[in-house]
Parts: sequence; structure tokens; C-alpha cells
Amino acid sequence: MTAATSRDLTIAEVRLTPILVADPPLLNTQGVHQPYTPRLIVEVVTADGTTGVGETYGDTKYLEPARPLADKLIGRPVSDLNGLFALADDVAVDGSRSGGRLDVGGLRGVQTADKLRLSVVSAFEVACLDALGKALGLPVHALLGGKVRDEVEYSAYLFYKWAGHPEGVASEQDEWGAALDPAGVVEQARRFKERYGFTSFKLKGGVFAPAEEIAAIRALAEAFPGHPLRLDPNGAWSVETALAVARELGDVLEYLEDPALGTPAMAEIAARTRVPLATNMCVTTFAEIREAFTSGAVQVVLSDHHYWGGLRNTRELAAICRAFGVGVSMHSNTHLGISLAAMTHVAATVPDLHHACDTHYPWQAEDVVTERPAFRNGAVAVSDAPGLGVTLDRDRLAALHERWLADDGALRDRDDGAAMRLAHPGWRAPAVPRW
Amino acid sequence: MTAATSRDLTIAEVRLTPILVADPPLLNTQGVHQPYTPRLIVEVVTADGTTGVGETYGDTKYLEPARPLADKLIGRPVSDLNGLFALADDVAVDGSRSGGRLDVGGLRGVQTADKLRLSVVSAFEVACLDALGKALGLPVHALLGGKVRDEVEYSAYLFYKWAGHPEGVASEQDEWGAALDPAGVVEQARRFKERYGFTSFKLKGGVFAPAEEIAAIRALAEAFPGHPLRLDPNGAWSVETALAVARELGDVLEYLEDPALGTPAMAEIAARTRVPLATNMCVTTFAEIREAFTSGAVQVVLSDHHYWGGLRNTRELAAICRAFGVGVSMHSNTHLGISLAAMTHVAATVPDLHHACDTHYPWQAEDVVTERPAFRNGAVAVSDAPGLGVTLDRDRLAALHERWLADDGALRDRDDGAAMRLAHPGWRAPAVPRW
Repeated sequence: MTAATSRDLTIAEVRLTPILVADPPLLNTQGVHQPYTPRLIVEVVTADGTTGVGETYGDTKYLEPARPLADKLIGRPVSDLNGLFALADDVAVDGSRSGGRLDVGGLRGVQTADKLRLSVVSAFEVACLDALGKALGLPVHALLGGKVRDEVEYSAYLFYKWAGHPEGVASEQDEWGAALDPAGVVEQARRFKERYGFTSFKLKGGVFAPAEEIAAIRALAEAFPGHPLRLDPNGAWSVETALAVARELGDVLEYLEDPALGTPAMAEIAARTRVPLATNMCVTTFAEIREAFTSGAVQVVLSDHHYWGGLRNTRELAAICRAFGVGVSMHSNTHLGISLAAMTHVAATVPDLHHACDTHYPWQAEDVVTERPAFRNGAVAVSDAPGLGVTLDRDRLAALHERWLADDGALRDRDDGAAMRLAHPGWRAPAVPRW
Repeated sequence: MTAATSRDLTIAEVRLTPILVADPPLLNTQGVHQPYTPRLIVEVVTADGTTGVGETYGDTKYLEPARPLADKLIGRPVSDLNGLFALADDVAVDGSRSGGRLDVGGLRGVQTADKLRLSVVSAFEVACLDALGKALGLPVHALLGGKVRDEVEYSAYLFYKWAGHPEGVASEQDEWGAALDPAGVVEQARRFKERYGFTSFKLKGGVFAPAEEIAAIRALAEAFPGHPLRLDPNGAWSVETALAVARELGDVLEYLEDPALGTPAMAEIAARTRVPLATNMCVTTFAEIREAFTSGAVQVVLSDHHYWGGLRNTRELAAICRAFGVGVSMHSNTHLGISLAAMTHVAATVPDLHHACDTHYPWQAEDVVTERPAFRNGAVAVSDAPGLGVTLDRDRLAALHERWLADDGALRDRDDGAAMRLAHPGWRAPAVPRW
């Protein structure tokens, strides 16, 4: 372990690059993924020329506060991470973009201005940690107190999906084919296992009636006996439906993820089943923890450093979970290699990470890093290179930014319902509970 | 902000130096401070010769696990702080030293092996942070995410005290004189305010009957109108006595600290008074948080990085308190300039530190650092020098270690009750509740 040469670590420049990245037609209860998903790539450059990178959601509502926050960073020490939150508090967020609606892209419960701010801060925090680590000659995990494991286990994230995006819609090729029934889901799982070595499986549910999804989980249990299985309908079920599913699948589920919407409903389910409940919807901010933990509503919190405001906040969340005997693992939404590296660094430092982390990463054929992090035996090795251990591919970044520039605005704000209507014009996001 | 030159930050050596440091005859409900208090000074030396320092309790029960833990650190990266806890778990702790008794010196509730281990780990963690910061050219606060304030406010820690230790007992001179009634307490407070600028006052209570201590707080309130006041009987009162005191002093107390022993008693008091309750006795480990927070037993946790296992754990405690709407500030026991620097660094990084921190530091005329941290307007400036910003005075360290070597064992383990018996041979630690 060595530290680098004397350097000026004041932030001199912050570059923001919105991009559109290819996404397969993955189904969820709110609709279907668009052919391209917006992401924002953040580069923090120090006075000595060290560049750190981060990524987060790239919808307009995130881009708007990102620019003024970037301006506020100039001239500050790149190590000043605690100060990011107060800076973000001073950035205006358009209330109309966050008022009371469910977040379709993130499926993370009700939107608030603070949630938007924290998602923006997360990319800046990761970029600062990457720059700081590179400048000091330390991997990001060392800046978080050091890794307690050499690799981080991920689970296969299975989706019901179409073979392709609707006809006439510009999109990239998708090699995965359709998965719309138990056999399709099992085949998808088999390819995930063969290709990446995953040994636990999560199915994004809430797409078909519960009986069909129960059949899919049963088929997975038969095909992969003894492998941890998870089902996540994104809050689409009523309490009674959730309890019925829990009774049917209690013997094979590692946990049931967000079976119903809101902490009170989750608490009622938890009180009436032994199947552990996980969430990335009713506990997505520190303010939501107290009610959920004191009511016993959740047994596993699926953290997401984008939601929680970065890697250091993710560690604080893990500490709170530890103190309350609640498990912790990681949620994922569509993301690239920068965020996979960030997730791997922070997960490597959390001692009691007892569940394989979620990741959409295998679904992303495109990336902005020169060398993509690889899964071996279902795990990603923790990098000991300075910073995150990834290098930005500027040609790819420019090409994906060009795609964003060329878009007429239709895809710059993820809308799974709008994407669904291209195939089914009369389709509307279902009322909750859907079943 | 600059980072230092390329260096090998592997731990090459760990030095442990037990010392005895002069302590005035301060009274508490368990007895009186001995003329000398044991402390342990930890030095962590990296392969490139960078030395970091930490300090903690120096009683035999802490020294015993410190040596094997020191041996385990050799060859590990100095940044590997998360790993310290697992290393400490592997160190044997003599159960007979920690079984079920109240910790007299620390007055921190029931002793356990884990509490002992964490107190030892804290000194190693601080020493590692100091070394890491020096090697990287970063202050310790930057390693904790950066300061959010430039100075940390402390409160005056008032004690009932004798003019000197009992006749015939070797001890250093004490310039403070006796304080055994309201007038003495006010006079002590006046000197604290004049000399250091403190504007809030805490009285260590549980020494005299509640009526006398109520009179002392009343006298302080009259002498210093509008200044925050605190009273801490270290759990010496019954629930009813605590409520009576709260009724008498509710209009002038910032908070009442550990009025009664144990979380259930605290919860009962909290439910029946509006005076906030603070603790450094019923919440001193992460395992004790859940019961206390869900029962509403405490409104302010007084952290102590020695108890909690270091500066990073202290930040995690603060995050938990924030999520549950519980205030946080800092507890102190007899300590030197190394720990004051460590307390100041971590306190500078906690955004919602709404109460002035406790410190015994003004009572310590001796130290092992070349330049003692100073109080101005009741606050200590946050150092931006690399590491903690303190330098070990090796001559002073050697002299205080000589004193420890010369001791026949009588003072190597702090025993406030034994010290009391030198003046009052028949004295025994009172049963709780005392009043």
C-alpha cells in the first residue's frame, strides 16, 4: 500500500455528461423499459488534473439540480464529502417534478425533492471518492475503512421480457429473447448461471397475475434446488394477496421484496408471515427508517447508494440496520460499470452483508468504461487499484452523449408507461394494489 | 490541500505505553478520583516511519487485550480500520474482570468483554487515522469526510471536589481548591468561564443529597442566567427522586443526565417529564440502542469514542441518533490532549451536534503532547494539520511511564471507592438508587 505524490486536491472543474444507454424491453408492474435509459456521468477534476467519475439517474429532473451543485463544488477540497449535503440543500428542485407521484423509473415510492437531491449528490460523492483515491493511491474501499471481503456476491436479476422493443422503435439488438412464462424464466436463469455463475435468483414480478409468478418461482426452485430465490412485485399486491403468495412460496423464498405498498401494509404482512420482507420502496431515506423499524415492517433493507446519497451514507444505513437487527443488501436499477464498481467497493466494507446484491448490470450491453467489471462465480472481485478502478472510455461516452443530444426529448425522461403504450396504445399504469 | 509523497503505509510497529497522570480529587457517587489515573498511549508506526498516536483507558484490564491486538496489526495496511473489530474479537478478555460489575472508573453501566475490546480498539483506530492522515497530508477530519464547522464547543465540567487528596498520599498540586457547596460550585464555574470562555455548565452530581445539588444548580442559574445547565448524578437516584429534581429544575436544565440506572427507569422518567434525558450509561454500545430508542428512554446520547470503538463508530452512532430524532453530544472521562484532539476532529464532522461536548481536559495539568489544545470562547479550533495535529512529547511520556512503573499496583487500576476509603476508612460504594 503506497500513497501518491504531493498534489493539489481542490476541485477545479466538474463535467456533466447526460447519455442514453441501450436497455432491453424488461417488464415491471409500471410498464416496460424504454429502448434507451438516461444516465448522467459526473466527472470531478482536481487542480492537479486527477479525474474522478460517478454516475446516477439522467432524467431532466436530476440534470436540473446537478448543474448548480457542480458549480458550487469549484474551489472546495475533493475530500469535503460531509459538506455536499448542505450544498445540495441550497439547490432549487422543481417541486412539480417531485410532488407526490410514484417514481416510475426508480419504483422507489413517493418522490420528494430531498430524494432527487440525494440521488444527484451520490454521483458527486462517488466521483470525489474516485478522484481522492486516485490522488492518494488508495482504492475507494480503503477510503471507507477497508474491505472485509475480496469479492462481492451478486444475484441474477430475472425479468419477464419481450423478445424486442415494439416494431418501428429504434433500439439496439437484444440477445436474450422473450421470457413470458415459467419456462422462459427458467431458461433465462440458466443462461445467467452459465454465463456469470450466479447462484441466487430474483424475479421482477408484479407483471402477471400472482398465480403465474408463483408458478415461475416454483419452476426456478425445481430447476435450481437449494438456491436462494426472491420475488419483487414492486408493491403491486394487497396484504391478503401478499400473504397468500407467502404461504405458497414460504419454503423456497429467501425473502419477499415489497409485496405491498407502504410501511403499514408491509408491517401487517410481516406480522402474519415468517417469510422475511425486503424493501427498496418503503425505506429509501433515513426519515423513513424509524416507522419501518419500530413497526417490524422490514427484515432486509435493500440499499442503493444512488438513493441514499452515496457510499458513506450507505455505510451509515448499514450501521442503523445492524443496531436494529435488520439485514442489509443492495438494490439496483439500470446502471453502468461506474456504479457497479461503486457498489462493489462499499459492499466490500460492510461486515454483515448476508444477502447477494441486486444488479441490472448484465442487461446493459453498452458501457462508458474501457474494461467492464466481470462476474465470476456470481461475484465481482474488489479492486485494489486507486479510486474505483475503472477508466472512462471517452469515445463511448461521446457516442452515448450524441445519442442523448439527437433525442427529441421522448427518451430523456424514463417513462415505462409511455414505452408500454407504444405496444399497447390503451395501456395505463395500473392502480395499486393491482392484485 | 495537498497529499504527501509516495509511502509504504503498512504497519511495522505498535508501541504501548501505560502511564499514570495526575488527577484532582474530583467526587462522584462511586467515590473520588485517585491522585493518578492510568491511561494507555498507543503509537502505530508505518513501514515508512510515520507514527500515529491514540490514547484510552490504561487499567490492567485494558492493557491485557491491547498487547495481543497490537501484535495482530503488524503487516496490515494502516487504512484497514473496518478490520480492527474482527481482530479484536479474536483477542481473549479475562471474563473475571468484566463480569456484571459496574465500571467504577467509567461509570458506564455494566461491564462486558465487548465494551473492554471496543475501548482498546478506539485507541488503535485513532492512532491509525493519525498515521494515515500524516502520511497522506490530510487532517483526521478530512478522513472522516471533512469538517462542517471550524471549532467545536465544549461545556465546563464542574465537580464537587476536595482541596487536595488525603493527607499522606503522594499527589501533584491542585490549584482549584475545594468546592463542596453551591458557592464553591459557582466560584469554580466562574473560573472555568474566565479562563476558558465556557458558556454551558455541567455539574457532576450524585455526591450530595438531591436538595443540595438542586441548590447548586439554582445558584449557577442565578450567577449565569440563560446559560445551558446540566446535572449528572450517574444513576444515583430513584425514578421518583429524578422526577422531583426534574420538577424543581425543569426551567433551567438543558438536560438531566442519567438520573437513574438502566433503560426501563430512564424510560419511565422520560414519560413523566418534559426535561430531556441524556445518557452515557444506558446507551454505551450499539446493542443497547434499540431498547432505549424504541422506549423513548433518552433524548440525547453522549457519545464517547473510547466506548464506541473509535471515531468512525462515533459517526455511525450519530447517524443512528439522527434517524431516530435523538440528539447527540459527547461524554468524557479523564483524558489527555490526544483524545481531546480526536474528539474535536470527529465532533467537527457531525452536522447535527446541538449540545456543547463534555471534557475533563481542564482538570488535567499534565499531558503527553508538546502543545496542548486550547479553549477559546469555550471552543477548540479544528486543526487542519495532517493527522490529529498533535505531537508526542517523549520526555513527558517517559516521565509519566516511569511513574506507572514505580507504582506498586495500587493506582494502576482506577478505583474511586478505594481512593475514598483513604479519607473515610469505613466508606463503601452506595447501593443504587442512593436517593
